[in-house]
Amino acid sequence: MSEGFAEKPSPEALDENTFKELLESKQYRALRGRLSNSEPTHVADLLASIPADEAVIAFRLLPKSLAISVFDYMDGAFQNQLLEAFSDQAARSFLEAMPPDDRTELLDEVPAKVARRLLQILSPDQRRVTMQLLGYEEDTAGREMTPLFVDLHGDMTVAQALERIRRLAINRETVYVCYVMDRRRHLIGTVSLRELVVADPDASVTNIMRPDPVFVSTHTDREEVARELREHNLLAIPVVDAEDRLVGIITYDDVVDIVEQEATEDIYRFGAVPGTERGYFASRILSVVRRRGVWLLLLIVVNTITGSIIAGQERLLGEILILAAFIPLLIGTGGNVGAQSATVVIRGLATGEVKPRRALAVVLREAGIGAILGVVLGAVALGWAYMLGGNLKVAIVVCTTLVAISVMATLVGGALPFIFRLFKVDPALVSAPFITTIMDIFGVALYFGIAHMILVV
Amino acid sequence: MSEGFAEKPSPEALDENTFKELLESKQYRALRGRLSNSEPTHVADLLASIPADEAVIAFRLLPKSLAISVFDYMDGAFQNQLLEAFSDQAARSFLEAMPPDDRTELLDEVPAKVARRLLQILSPDQRRVTMQLLGYEEDTAGREMTPLFVDLHGDMTVAQALERIRRLAINRETVYVCYVMDRRRHLIGTVSLRELVVADPDASVTNIMRPDPVFVSTHTDREEVARELREHNLLAIPVVDAEDRLVGIITYDDVVDIVEQEATEDIYRFGAVPGTERGYFASRILSVVRRRGVWLLLLIVVNTITGSIIAGQERLLGEILILAAFIPLLIGTGGNVGAQSATVVIRGLATGEVKPRRALAVVLREAGIGAILGVVLGAVALGWAYMLGGNLKVAIVVCTTLVAISVMATLVGGALPFIFRLFKVDPALVSAPFITTIMDIFGVALYFGIAHMILVV
Repeated sequence: MSEGFAEKPSPEALDENTFKELLESKQYRALRGRLSNSEPTHVADLLASIPADEAVIAFRLLPKSLAISVFDYMDGAFQNQLLEAFSDQAARSFLEAMPPDDRTELLDEVPAKVARRLLQILSPDQRRVTMQLLGYEEDTAGREMTPLFVDLHGDMTVAQALERIRRLAINRETVYVCYVMDRRRHLIGTVSLRELVVADPDASVTNIMRPDPVFVSTHTDREEVARELREHNLLAIPVVDAEDRLVGIITYDDVVDIVEQEATEDIYRFGAVPGTERGYFASRILSVVRRRGVWLLLLIVVNTITGSIIAGQERLLGEILILAAFIPLLIGTGGNVGAQSATVVIRGLATGEVKPRRALAVVLREAGIGAILGVVLGAVALGWAYMLGGNLKVAIVVCTTLVAISVMATLVGGALPFIFRLFKVDPALVSAPFITTIMDIFGVALYFGIAHMILVV
Repeated sequence: MSEGFAEKPSPEALDENTFKELLESKQYRALRGRLSNSEPTHVADLLASIPADEAVIAFRLLPKSLAISVFDYMDGAFQNQLLEAFSDQAARSFLEAMPPDDRTELLDEVPAKVARRLLQILSPDQRRVTMQLLGYEEDTAGREMTPLFVDLHGDMTVAQALERIRRLAINRETVYVCYVMDRRRHLIGTVSLRELVVADPDASVTNIMRPDPVFVSTHTDREEVARELREHNLLAIPVVDAEDRLVGIITYDDVVDIVEQEATEDIYRFGAVPGTERGYFASRILSVVRRRGVWLLLLIVVNTITGSIIAGQERLLGEILILAAFIPLLIGTGGNVGAQSATVVIRGLATGEVKPRRALAVVLREAGIGAILGVVLGAVALGWAYMLGGNLKVAIVVCTTLVAISVMATLVGGALPFIFRLFKVDPALVSAPFITTIMDIFGVALYFGIAHMILVV
């Protein structure tokens, strides 16, 4: 029965019953369309007619510009009720149940005014769980920011600004950088407490502020946030919404955490441990097994190729059995050399030291390193292989293969992170186990290829 | 001829000629002994009689308490000459030529007063190269600190403190935390600019400061510095010398760099890339080859064990050749599972999330994970091994080995970082290649052991 509503054209005002039915039957798209065409006062009345935890859902469906007006029309008590409902379990599960693409399509950002008041009334714990409802994706500036900054107006004097700082100091995250806004809450500059303390008390804040401040948007990736803050050597970086209105700041101490967490993520990825497993003993064993096991199964499947290549060499192996003894050495070294190259390139890409546009130079350099390493390691292997097998030709095969494998490994380990990056996949997913498994295949293929050339004439 | 001096007992004052001869013939131990027994005024005169770059060497040989007095007796111009000489190439090479243990034995810390004045007159570049001459080891707080902090005296009023901050603000690293000292330069508390701005101007700094500040010593490892600063959520952490005199501070932005550099180091170590290779293209290829090659050679030597084990199985392999096809799969999975466990434990130890005292619980947990992973992976391998080889017994050998290898790998990967830590070796040296190589040995040993039990009855 509920399918009918979406089709029904409705130029007339949305009545309370239809509103409630659309909300209850979860026809959010239709509801958003109908609400968009209504007067702000009318929408405010509609929201007031239902429980706060449902009102918050309807409120989130409003286009941003409308949401601002609607919020302004509400009386103070209802505004607070609505804000409190943002941390309700019921309201949150509404968002979680939504497919991500619908979520992006249906929900605008929360207006800066609402976001900031909301963030101020919530406890840190509530804040964390509420962020999703505000439409800020994980790992973005919106999730990391705090609303507890000092905002100043451009027409204040230094003395007035200091007075305001004294008043706000108790519960602000930092008072050392203050944010100067115009009447429409646009960020127009920053001024540090150091500058205020040194300045003439009668000077205007506008005159001593630094204009054109560095800022990030609520959707900026947190790694980018960390980079910006560090590059400009800031104590805190302001976060603005799509209309350039200031909604929060991110302080240096959060950036230290971000840098460490991102490093941990990269290290986990390189070790083929998916997820950041916050809390070693807190993760359930079966969930750990599932996450690690997926990777391992994938690697085993890839490794069946290696096995099949060896199985296909029955004749050659049957004649010269000692060839089997060198398989671990050869594929192991391939994996190790490849892991070294990948390590350097992945970390270089993460810290920004290696630039994607220099990919070719990096890969060629790695291959050069691989060639030299191969010759050195090959010479050692030649001696040992001859001692173990007593067959010079086999020893030459092992030595030659080692040179080829080293070059191949540096190529694979050096190039794969760039290729991943090219396809917008995190280069850190080029894990050591992944390199090892790839090099197993190349390793045995090269080994038996070279063995055939030298031994089967 | 120079050997004679050390033996000659000399209760009389050190004369200028003997002083110069001891210095020229590099008999630092004897010189230190003779200087220690001299009057500060006399030592100051002796130093004034030689060029500044030699005087700085003699000055560094003085015991700390004597050095303070001697410095105080010098006139201002000579003090500055001496300080400037600290960045002389000649003076630096003196230190570099000294064996590290002699260095530790002969050189005390530089007195706080000298260190701070020295650090203030040097450019950041000079400062970096001079640190070693001051006796601060690499990766310690002494190397990272800056002398550009605001020091206050306990008997100042808030208004006087603010006045001092206004005056110093221009060239201080931070003015947001100020350090309160008693008359002997002992750190007795900290006070933030926020607190000063909010406080009554006539209040005494002692009354509003926070006593018992968190501090580190010049010898504290920089990782520990980062941990302390983050744990106490500080903007900067004070650094004191052995007598608890304040010599510098380390600010939050340095800590961000420390956290990132330490993560890079750990990532490089895990990938078996020694050294942090600052500047990818800056390192010379041959030096890169040497550093990576040392690791690889070591791993190849260890891997000869694996090869020898396989070579010893000629009879079994000759009968059942297909066994060779499963070697890469088995040792590869062992390496991968081990790398996963090692990754989690190494990073956990680095971030402090995993405590060494819970080693047993961690290793047992990992072994449990290994057992479950082994059963799952073993089941998959059983099917594939049967398909490839057409021999159920061989498939059972492969499956059983995989279970055993998984458990072994989690034990090795989980326990090795703790064992390294126990022997004071950086757990991050348990690299992925190292785990892989160790698991190659265990892998083939388990494989052929199980094969003998099941196939050779």
